[in-house]
This record gives sequence, structure tokens and C-alpha cells, in this order.
Amino acid sequence: MATKQTICRWAALSLSSIAGVFVPDILLPRDASEAIKHELVAVSTTGTDERAQSWLTEQKVPDPETIKVYHDWKTMLAEGDFDIVYISTPHPLHYEHTMAALKAKRNVLVEKPATMNAVQFKVLSDLARKQGVVLMEAMWTRYLPATRYLQEVLLPKIGEVRRVYADFSFPIVSDDLSHSSRFLDKGAGAGSLLDQGVYALTWADLGLNGIPSKALTKVAHASTMNVPGVAGEVDDITTVVLSKQNSETAVQEAVAIVTTSMTLPGSSKPAFYQRLQANKSAPSVRIEGTKASIAVPFPPIRPQELRVQWYGAEHLDKDGIETEEVIKKPVERGWGIWYQADVIAEKVFSRQAGAEGEVIGYEESLRVLGWMDAARAQAGIRYSEESERV
Amino acid sequence: MATKQTICRWAALSLSSIAGVFVPDILLPRDASEAIKHELVAVSTTGTDERAQSWLTEQKVPDPETIKVYHDWKTMLAEGDFDIVYISTPHPLHYEHTMAALKAKRNVLVEKPATMNAVQFKVLSDLARKQGVVLMEAMWTRYLPATRYLQEVLLPKIGEVRRVYADFSFPIVSDDLSHSSRFLDKGAGAGSLLDQGVYALTWADLGLNGIPSKALTKVAHASTMNVPGVAGEVDDITTVVLSKQNSETAVQEAVAIVTTSMTLPGSSKPAFYQRLQANKSAPSVRIEGTKASIAVPFPPIRPQELRVQWYGAEHLDKDGIETEEVIKKPVERGWGIWYQADVIAEKVFSRQAGAEGEVIGYEESLRVLGWMDAARAQAGIRYSEESERV
Repeated sequence: MATKQTICRWAALSLSSIAGVFVPDILLPRDASEAIKHELVAVSTTGTDERAQSWLTEQKVPDPETIKVYHDWKTMLAEGDFDIVYISTPHPLHYEHTMAALKAKRNVLVEKPATMNAVQFKVLSDLARKQGVVLMEAMWTRYLPATRYLQEVLLPKIGEVRRVYADFSFPIVSDDLSHSSRFLDKGAGAGSLLDQGVYALTWADLGLNGIPSKALTKVAHASTMNVPGVAGEVDDITTVVLSKQNSETAVQEAVAIVTTSMTLPGSSKPAFYQRLQANKSAPSVRIEGTKASIAVPFPPIRPQELRVQWYGAEHLDKDGIETEEVIKKPVERGWGIWYQADVIAEKVFSRQAGAEGEVIGYEESLRVLGWMDAARAQAGIRYSEESERV
Repeated sequence: MATKQTICRWAALSLSSIAGVFVPDILLPRDASEAIKHELVAVSTTGTDERAQSWLTEQKVPDPETIKVYHDWKTMLAEGDFDIVYISTPHPLHYEHTMAALKAKRNVLVEKPATMNAVQFKVLSDLARKQGVVLMEAMWTRYLPATRYLQEVLLPKIGEVRRVYADFSFPIVSDDLSHSSRFLDKGAGAGSLLDQGVYALTWADLGLNGIPSKALTKVAHASTMNVPGVAGEVDDITTVVLSKQNSETAVQEAVAIVTTSMTLPGSSKPAFYQRLQANKSAPSVRIEGTKASIAVPFPPIRPQELRVQWYGAEHLDKDGIETEEVIKKPVERGWGIWYQADVIAEKVFSRQAGAEGEVIGYEESLRVLGWMDAARAQAGIRYSEESERV
């Protein structure tokens, strides 16, 4: 292919554990035929240079010594030479960090949840537009081949969606997890709704609003139980019911049942990691339309297969049992986190100079953040006032 | 075996379609070693003698001409010579029919839901006790071998139950179902909550309260969507969230997500009947405890298998994946509706003369009926005032 490959140069604000998944994934080898190639050019860390080099080596970043290491993220945002900054600090810090990046006219990919509440995201989105840069929440699951196929090909075919089940539960918390872990630190935004429920709510959004409509989806119920024996009311088993209602009559048109937990179903750590790759017998997500239902096997954060059960006599086998269509849409390489990186990079490079800024997936992010706000209010899930401020 | 077999003589109040399942099931051939043997001795019908004889022949009742046919249920209750009356009229009539039977000092097995609301059941239960007879709601699923094993052996072992999913959805309503069907006739108690949801709520009750505790289980949310295109607001897709709360602190200890539908997942009629026998890939019921979870495959009305996933490193296979214990507890014969008939018959025959009356499963029936009352109030599911009266 004669097409020139564009290099997208990234800066990573913080060397978090999720950055340790993101960075190697975007740096996976590319064909020369691909339009985009990613490079890491800068990182900021509160640690030492040695710590940074060791982190870069662990992530198998090529030529780690060429990466510019900043010990002050503000300086990196002000002076750094890069195309997009990836922000993966704990979510209570996202607002401040993203705000600073946008003020420095940086394109931003910020980890999910993008902010602690919908108002913060609205403020950042307005700022991104004003600054003429691109903002995107790193809800990578939306950009995987299986998810795109679901939204673009399947949803238009299965009739009206009436009910969605979306669960994302796995045992992060086990006896061997330190109580000082970030997953139990409310100051770092710990809690199953924000950490895991955001995925389940995203699936509910795909099912209910994957095809845009005038209907409004509201939180009809939310309740939670905290992690037992851990200080600070860390929400564990959370249940949210979303009601999609006709915007004029308020009559319910569809329902989504969204569940999450960081203790259920319990298992030891090794099994958890293996299970992320495994098919479970029960789907994590089921989208039930009037013509067919779609099941997404566990883990719903990284779907690679869709199982469609079409209704109606023409879809029965010779024994009169419904046939199931299994659609495989594997991740092409690595974890698949790079798909979203390609999406924002393409947008950054295809924009006209001087254009107004853009927010990729604005409506979707804002909807899910709004549901989390409402669910937290109903379930009594609280964080510090400071982290909620705009 | 030298033990004498007791004959339990039944009267059937109405020749309903469910009576057409019940009667053949209790009349299935028995070993001489079994303590109880059932006989049908009387029926009441508003139809002709010929219709009654033809119904009895259809149900393969032996010697149909020996069955006493009444054309007035009141006369049957007053004069009939039988041990227990089986009431399977539409549920809005249960209260009146059961009341009359109890007043005639009859032992009663009444189809589920036993009454339209909890207050009616309370009145009937008090009357049964006063009259010195036995009353039982025909929630046959509770008396199957798999259900009993779950309650007696498994529940005490899986730790505290934190979350239950219970779904019973199947497409009774399809394009070829007449709008005059009882399943769409509100006057006959139609609606997915009362017709199908009662099973899902029963599973939630088994999961949350199968081991009695001081905690209170309340309806935290209920909403519904009516069957589209059918007059009379027949509830179709219904969602109920039950919250089990510490009776002193009101802190949530467990949650149950209960769903039902008479249109989802849609399928043609033949497949529906076959599916009742089939294992579906997704469990209908999942009971999640702190030490293990239990899945009950579809159909949850007639469980024959329990799948237990034990947590903890000692239950992992060599690849680190959780093992699943599959426990088969098949129904010994027929549909298994006869198990409940044995339960009430044994109670009827083992009682001391002159003892106070008894209500089998009183707490359980009252709890589920109370949840249905609360769910109906929240979801706006209404029946005629007359049918609710005490």
C-alpha cells in the first residue's frame, strides 16, 4: 500500500496499572498498510527516573530511554510535544487533569468514568469544543468489532428492544486483597458502580439506545450493599433498573436490569484472570428484542462473540427448537484497547485546522454518567464533595 | 411391603386446562409400597354430562363412568364424598370457592396464586385453622426433589445468599393466540405477574428465605409493560426488585431481581412446548451465596438439575477454572405435580381427629402474595375491586 502511515504520538499522564495495559496494546506491531501507528513519547510520574525507566521496560516500550519523562504533569501538558494525552489517574482526579489538558489545547483520551458526575463532563465537553480539541472517554468496549457489529448490523434487525440484562460482576475483592488497595479506597473513587458498573451501564445503553430514539431512559431503582468488613462504605453489590419511557406519555417501552459486584461470583485470583478469557455458561448481557435476542458471553468488557436467537417458525430446527446464530467477531490483536486509540487518532488527524473541538461519544458518555449520578443518589453511594465540584 | 396403602379421594372443582395436567399426574400408577394412592371420585362442571365424560376420557381417568359429576360446585362441596378438593378455577374465583370449601370443612388444594391478594389468603388461612381442615396453595415447584434438595442440603452450605436472579419468561402470547384467551382476559386474572411471576417470586423466596431469618424482604421496585395491541392493560414484561433488609437497621443484606414476560423470549408455539423440556444455555435462576452460587436451568417451574459453582482455591481444576458440580434430581414420574398432592394427603391422613386446622406453606404463600400486592401497587397492575374483596 502506498498510503503514508500517520504516527500518533502519545503522552501518558500517570503510570497507572491501566496505563500498563493501554500502552503495550497501542504499541503492538502494525502493518505498513494501516493508516495509523501509535508511539509513546512522554510520560509524567511522581516517581523517580529509574522507576519510570523500569515501568517502561516492563511494558516493553521500545527505546525507553528516548521517552521524555516529566515529574510534573502540568509541565508535560504545557511543554510536551505529543498529539494526544492519555489520562488514567484515579477518577476523582480526572476532572482536574482533563481540565488542565484542555486548557493547554491538548486532545484528551480520559479513562472511564470520565468524570465523577455528568455536570463535570458537560463542562469539560464545552471546553473541548471551545478549545478546538478532541475529547473522548476511554470506554474501549464500545469500539471493539463485536460491539460495532452489534450496533451497526444486529440492532437494526432484531425489532424493538424490550428488555436488557447487563451484569458485570467479578471478585476483585478476595481475602488476599489488601484493604489499602485502590479498589477499596473511596478517595481514589473505589466502588463497584463506578469501577465495574460503568461497563454494565454501557451495555444497557447499547441495548436501549444503540439505535437513537426520542424516548428517555431514567433510573427507576438503584440499591447497593457495601463490601462487608471494609471501612468507608465501598459499594459492592449494586442493582440498577433503567426504564426507557416514551418522552410524551412516560409509558415504559423497555427495561434494563443492570447489576455489578466486586465480590460475586467469588473465586480465587488466578481463576478470575482466566475467566476473563472464558466463555461462561450464562451470558453477561442479554438484549431482548421483539424479533430476536442477543446474548454476549462473559466477559462483557471484551466481547468477541454474539449469540443471536431469532424468533419465529422459520428459525426452528427439525425438532422445533430455536436455532442460535453464533457470530464471531474476535479482537484482531492484543486486548483490543487500541481500537479506541485509532478512533481518536483518526479524528485528531482528519480535522480541519481551526475547527471547533469535538467530543467523541458525547451523548453516550453523558447518558451513562447521568445514570450513575441518579443511581448513586438513590442507592446512597457518596464521594467527597471536593471530587464532585465543578 | 406390608404397609397398607392409603387411598386419597379427590374432587376437582372445574375441568380447567390445569386440571387436565393435575388429574392424570396424580393418577399415574403407583407401587404398592407407596403410602398414598390418589383417586379422582368427583368433579363439578358447568358443562353437560357428555362433556364431563369426554374430558375424563381425554385425561385417561380409569372408569370415568364411576366418577360423580356435579353440575353445581356448591352441591359437590356440601354433599360429595371425598378427602380433598382441588380448586383450579381462574384465580379471581379462588377466594369464593376456597371460602365455600372451607366452610364445608373440606381440605383444599388451591391453584396458585391462591388468592388475588395477601389479605384474602390470611382470611382463608384463619378459617382453615378454625374449621380444623388443611389448606395448601398448589405451588408444586416447591415440592419437587430438586427444590427440596436445594433447600434442605445446598442452602445451608453456600454461605449467606447475597443476590438472586429469578426469571420466568416464555411466549404464551404469539400471533396465533386468540385475544379471547384466558391468558389475555383480565377478568380471569390474566397478566404475567400473577400467571408466571408467581414462580419467579417463589424462587426469589427460596433463595432469600429458604433458610428462615429475622430479615424482612420488601419490594424495592416494580414496573411493567403491557402486552402491545391487546385491550385491558394485561401486564407482560414485569420487573421486580426485592430487597432483604436487616429488620432492625433496614440495611440491605441481599437483593433479588425477578423478571417475567409472556412475550419474551418470543418463539413459535411448538418450540415453546419443547423448550419447557430443554436446557437453555442461560440459567433461569441463579442464587449467589458467599461460598457458592447455584444455577437452575430453564424451565424453573420444573427443576431437575442444580449447578453449583463453589468458590475458593480448593474448587479449581488444574487450569485454575472453577469446577461446577452438577446435581441431578429428576422428577420420578410424570410432570411431578403429584408430589404436592402427596404432601397434602399425608398431612390430611396423619392429623389427629379434632385438631386445629393447618395451612401448608403458610408463611411462604403469604410472603409471595404480599410481594405481588406491593409489586402491583408500584407497577400499576389492577384487577376488579370485586375480585380483591374480603
